[in-house]
Amino acid sequence: MLIVQKFGGSSVADAAKIRRVAGIVADAFSEDHKLVVVLSAQGDTTDELIEKANEINPAPSRREMDALLTVGEQISVALMAMELERMRLPVVSLTGWQIGLRTDARHGAARIRSIDGERLRKELDQGKIVLVCGFQGIDKYGDQTTLGRGGSDTTAVAIAAALGADQCQIYTDVEGVFTADPRKVPEAKKLSAITYDEMLELASLGSQVLHNRSVELAKRYGVDLEVRSSYARKPGTKVKEVLQPMERMLISGVAKDADAARVTVFGVPDAPGLAFRVFNALSRAGINVDVILQSGGVDGESDISFTLREADAPRARELLERQREAIGFREVAVDANVAKVSVVGAGLMDSPGMAVRMFEALAGCGINIQMISSSEIKLSVVIARDRADEAVRAIHAKFFPA
Amino acid sequence: MLIVQKFGGSSVADAAKIRRVAGIVADAFSEDHKLVVVLSAQGDTTDELIEKANEINPAPSRREMDALLTVGEQISVALMAMELERMRLPVVSLTGWQIGLRTDARHGAARIRSIDGERLRKELDQGKIVLVCGFQGIDKYGDQTTLGRGGSDTTAVAIAAALGADQCQIYTDVEGVFTADPRKVPEAKKLSAITYDEMLELASLGSQVLHNRSVELAKRYGVDLEVRSSYARKPGTKVKEVLQPMERMLISGVAKDADAARVTVFGVPDAPGLAFRVFNALSRAGINVDVILQSGGVDGESDISFTLREADAPRARELLERQREAIGFREVAVDANVAKVSVVGAGLMDSPGMAVRMFEALAGCGINIQMISSSEIKLSVVIARDRADEAVRAIHAKFFPA
Repeated sequence: MLIVQKFGGSSVADAAKIRRVAGIVADAFSEDHKLVVVLSAQGDTTDELIEKANEINPAPSRREMDALLTVGEQISVALMAMELERMRLPVVSLTGWQIGLRTDARHGAARIRSIDGERLRKELDQGKIVLVCGFQGIDKYGDQTTLGRGGSDTTAVAIAAALGADQCQIYTDVEGVFTADPRKVPEAKKLSAITYDEMLELASLGSQVLHNRSVELAKRYGVDLEVRSSYARKPGTKVKEVLQPMERMLISGVAKDADAARVTVFGVPDAPGLAFRVFNALSRAGINVDVILQSGGVDGESDISFTLREADAPRARELLERQREAIGFREVAVDANVAKVSVVGAGLMDSPGMAVRMFEALAGCGINIQMISSSEIKLSVVIARDRADEAVRAIHAKFFPA
Repeated sequence: MLIVQKFGGSSVADAAKIRRVAGIVADAFSEDHKLVVVLSAQGDTTDELIEKANEINPAPSRREMDALLTVGEQISVALMAMELERMRLPVVSLTGWQIGLRTDARHGAARIRSIDGERLRKELDQGKIVLVCGFQGIDKYGDQTTLGRGGSDTTAVAIAAALGADQCQIYTDVEGVFTADPRKVPEAKKLSAITYDEMLELASLGSQVLHNRSVELAKRYGVDLEVRSSYARKPGTKVKEVLQPMERMLISGVAKDADAARVTVFGVPDAPGLAFRVFNALSRAGINVDVILQSGGVDGESDISFTLREADAPRARELLERQREAIGFREVAVDANVAKVSVVGAGLMDSPGMAVRMFEALAGCGINIQMISSSEIKLSVVIARDRADEAVRAIHAKFFPA
């Protein structure tokens, strides 16, 4: 099998951790797999480099920042190669430009355009373990770029897609994807498998396991992902298009997104297009709106509530205030003390009983539901932020009774 | 003018030093010069990277060591670019592979094959200050290489040659080339100019200012070099093919090479080819021999003395002992306590008085001359090492009376 493995920065933070990862790589290699191993920069390297830069210039160009930051992964792969050499295994380390990972020129948040698999295939054909710098690529000007958050996961998935790998294993410091955050809900169960769509919903809800871009890419190219632990040697969670009946659980997870604020626009006149103007102003400013609730009109007026990222709330309020006369609403209120709690599951909409269970759980703890939204595979409620952990535990207990 | 400037690792060791160098660069840029600036890795970066590597593997492959070490200069040029950006100057940083600096595949000690000037010219044409990573290149396999000792000087000279630059300025922590080591001989004078050949002799004699490879390259391509101080803003020493009469001093310098040992082979039979066998054995073992003295034959025997690097002496003794019966000599003695002191000057052989002056100086302090050798532009004596500094001062005083 051809397997792409990816290890994050904390997994290669020092010599001892590099040794541990090398052990995992060596085991897979001894099972006759062909291996491409994608690494992130060691632990704090990126932060240290940014600090060095800021000492000199608090606002350097993104181009030079990328030129600086790409050294982080270069250090990781070279050191890992040396450890595998010590174990007398055939190995070679390659940078983003060496594997021809082409991106657009958006420094700091570049998008992968293509991967020239030639060098990768040549080294694999020679029987080598190929170590690759994650997070980085090269643009059409021949300059180095970085992919932004979750970049190394994306690199791994893109390589798996380009080479038609049998599997892409993302090693993290958790054992897989759980039905809830195991730090908050000790009864949370590890999922043996989850669909791309469910994973996307969970990722966007603040479950930090995989970045959305990598899951989207995996979905587009049908790359079989597996999230595994760098520490425990056991199966993790597979992420794929369709699950086997055995793999399916009632729901895939209960997740909390605490990075939310609720904005309410009171007294919007019931005239066509006015609600549109509210959201248009925000959209043009690059502010994403999530859950939306429009109250029924009373006296020719209605109230519009929506959630957004907490950091966007002050700017949203300001933008709306400026439009107050034009739109004709009465006032804007911001409640920064909310959170979104969601149940995610591919079969959610097929079983109406699911929603009832969720509401029962919340009612049982006396938690007030401020807003509700639903999609094919997700049911979300907006509640007071300081009750969110309690809500997650109660909902989880309802779906997975002890 | 198109000028290539090179700054070493100690000149860019921290933010304050980067700022100072940026000032030098900015001044040259404000005089309407086109600039390529070659930088080494910051201060201890290379040592730190080697330490990280050795913690993992005391004998990593040179290929991976090069992959690791090239990050050092990448950090330097990116940080310097950020400082110049802060000063609102147009700048771009480039790596060895980005400027197409092709080398052979001898990792750790690669030789430059060619430089593709395209990217360099494009950036210069756009009016940018171009910062380039010294010490590094790319081989025909697309792998990064390092040039070994003096590599950044060589990079600068090679770029100057490839672009037909008007001048190549090597900035160091000394003000130029002196007639003797100024730390040992306070009366030493800075030379305003010196020929390539003289510089080569001085460099090989342990004057640390410029590495031989860079001077050889400058000579081959007729690149005008100038050694300047990163600290004092004043003219340094020019290195070129022919000096103007005004630039010429009686001699260019008095230098000491303390890394020497003297080996004497006693009682070599006066038969043809036996002396050859002595040196052949050493040569095949990769041991370079410097000054050679063969005493006249007495009783059908002669003694052969030669100097070599001190570290090679034990191995030379062992090799010779093994050949003792075959060659038929009596014994080998090693004196590790010697040094070579030399006077360098292009006109040396034209004025026999020079040698006399040197011997007078030594006789004046009662220093015994063990061996003598001479070339077109150099006159060397081997003496006791603990008198070498005294000899340098005495000789210098003879040529440059106060």
